[in-house]
Amino acid sequence: MLSKKAAIKRFKKRAALKGDDAQLAERLTAGDISALSKCITLVESSNKKNKEAAQAVIKKCLPHTGKSIRLGITGVPGVGKSTFIESFGTYLTQKGHRVAVLAVDPSSTLSKGSILGDKTRMNNLSVNEKAFIRPSPSSGALGGVTNATRESILLCEAAGFDVIMIETVGVGQSETEIYNMVDFFTLLMLAGAGDELQGIKRGIMEMADLVIINKADGENLKTAKYARREYQNALHLFPLKASQLQPKVQICSSTEGTNMNAVWNTLTSFATKTKESGYFDEKRKKQAVSSLHQSIRYFIDQNLKENDELAAELKKKEIEVTHCKTTAYQAAQAIVKMLLK
Amino acid sequence: MLSKKAAIKRFKKRAALKGDDAQLAERLTAGDISALSKCITLVESSNKKNKEAAQAVIKKCLPHTGKSIRLGITGVPGVGKSTFIESFGTYLTQKGHRVAVLAVDPSSTLSKGSILGDKTRMNNLSVNEKAFIRPSPSSGALGGVTNATRESILLCEAAGFDVIMIETVGVGQSETEIYNMVDFFTLLMLAGAGDELQGIKRGIMEMADLVIINKADGENLKTAKYARREYQNALHLFPLKASQLQPKVQICSSTEGTNMNAVWNTLTSFATKTKESGYFDEKRKKQAVSSLHQSIRYFIDQNLKENDELAAELKKKEIEVTHCKTTAYQAAQAIVKMLLK
Repeated sequence: MLSKKAAIKRFKKRAALKGDDAQLAERLTAGDISALSKCITLVESSNKKNKEAAQAVIKKCLPHTGKSIRLGITGVPGVGKSTFIESFGTYLTQKGHRVAVLAVDPSSTLSKGSILGDKTRMNNLSVNEKAFIRPSPSSGALGGVTNATRESILLCEAAGFDVIMIETVGVGQSETEIYNMVDFFTLLMLAGAGDELQGIKRGIMEMADLVIINKADGENLKTAKYARREYQNALHLFPLKASQLQPKVQICSSTEGTNMNAVWNTLTSFATKTKESGYFDEKRKKQAVSSLHQSIRYFIDQNLKENDELAAELKKKEIEVTHCKTTAYQAAQAIVKMLLK
Repeated sequence: MLSKKAAIKRFKKRAALKGDDAQLAERLTAGDISALSKCITLVESSNKKNKEAAQAVIKKCLPHTGKSIRLGITGVPGVGKSTFIESFGTYLTQKGHRVAVLAVDPSSTLSKGSILGDKTRMNNLSVNEKAFIRPSPSSGALGGVTNATRESILLCEAAGFDVIMIETVGVGQSETEIYNMVDFFTLLMLAGAGDELQGIKRGIMEMADLVIINKADGENLKTAKYARREYQNALHLFPLKASQLQPKVQICSSTEGTNMNAVWNTLTSFATKTKESGYFDEKRKKQAVSSLHQSIRYFIDQNLKENDELAAELKKKEIEVTHCKTTAYQAAQAIVKMLLK
């Protein structure tokens, strides 16, 4: 087994630039995994040249994107996200699907090392030809981590992956961001009282299209079935979602691989219903527009940071507003005037 | 009793411009309520000239600001927010405080008409000399509603109000905005099972420094006391707040005016503790900086909207990204380049 350090080195080397950039898009859309890996590295780069190269590739890939189900997966640490993804991903590849797994926040299971040599996590899926696993982007990604993840989804789709799982830890700020880039949002939970107070925020529960109670096996099965009813009742009390979908609760055992079909059937039924109603496409369009506006804000922020004169003036204005020397409105007006001059 | 229409007209007239703008700040800081009312109208105006006039006044007022306790008050409709504010506000004025009440979202109790002629809400407080009540700003406020409310707080402080209550309905998007402009956040609830599922979001519970169980009177008293213990236990399970304050739960009866002293003592103890630890000032500074950045975003958005050429290009780019003709990154880059040229 490789040491962690050696594994990181190997990973970086594997992901590093090689071959002709011009052919990257062609190789990627033909399903070449190393091309996909390389493109995502470009997308996640904090180097402007790399980012421009990535944009050229993505633009060529765009006609091949959009044909997947984008699935957000969240849950507190210990709920078994990586075992679930391993189990569900394997089930899907056996059904002929190609599955990509992306992680968003640095604290998610993926980035704790599954593909960096730690053989204890997703060891089957990580060597499965029909699967692609990618840990969190570094926080230095040009355009922001969210943007990098969004673009990685597009690249995975262009490479022929038709189920994209985006993993996040359900305790941070990233859930809303994930929610805004996926079709369906899945919350993993464990049966047993008090779970919902132990870290999962109510806001996250409200986002979920599907709640999955994991570890429903052996002695846990009975409590899991009971919890399923409880959650299903609780979810009925929330206002109806914009999708008009009533959130569902499923139980499964990731270690025994049971009920994966129930999870998948729920998701495909969601997809069918929302495609029929037009909500599926409408949501994706809104997400695209919102990512444009987010990117605009990103570039404005960059301009404020990178221009020394502006950055100094902003710092000065920040001090002025905190000391009640000027109003936020007037300070902002001055900064924007300077920015646009 | 005035008709609603006549009341609105009277209110508008009363709040309309009159007198010398140059003396507005002087009159306001001397405690002149009609000057305060007029300044807030200027702050809330969608007219640029009015807004500039308002900024001039606020700038003169700034040295007199900051010396209040800013209190956010939220709760679902029916929990008794207006009776609580009436009762608590009256209690405070009896103790010699001057109390200002601002509403944020259009659905809050204030804007349902208390000062627009509806005598059933806050009828004592609205005629109390030591109190000032103001409904929601119109959504057209230049700089945004949040900014208008923030500036209204400053104006109320400059006019000598030392307790500012900002009221919002605990079901919408405005709670985070309020949270970011107050010192302490108060959640009003009712005793009785299921309340927390009936509309209050968990995220709001987590924001609360103080949970107040209202209508703790008569037959409700026992359940209220029980609920108090329950909530106090539940709040212990949340991670400790940045303020290091353990959230408190108090019961009160707004109709009978009981336990208002317990509510006030809790708040003053919070204030003492956070002022000693430095958190109080630190938070206000952060809020000021964040309002500057929010205003910058506002002005950028305005520029994108008001420049016809830019607005048309943005619309075009929005369509391009939704149809996968370009990436959000490239589209944003083009827009920002055009904006800054």
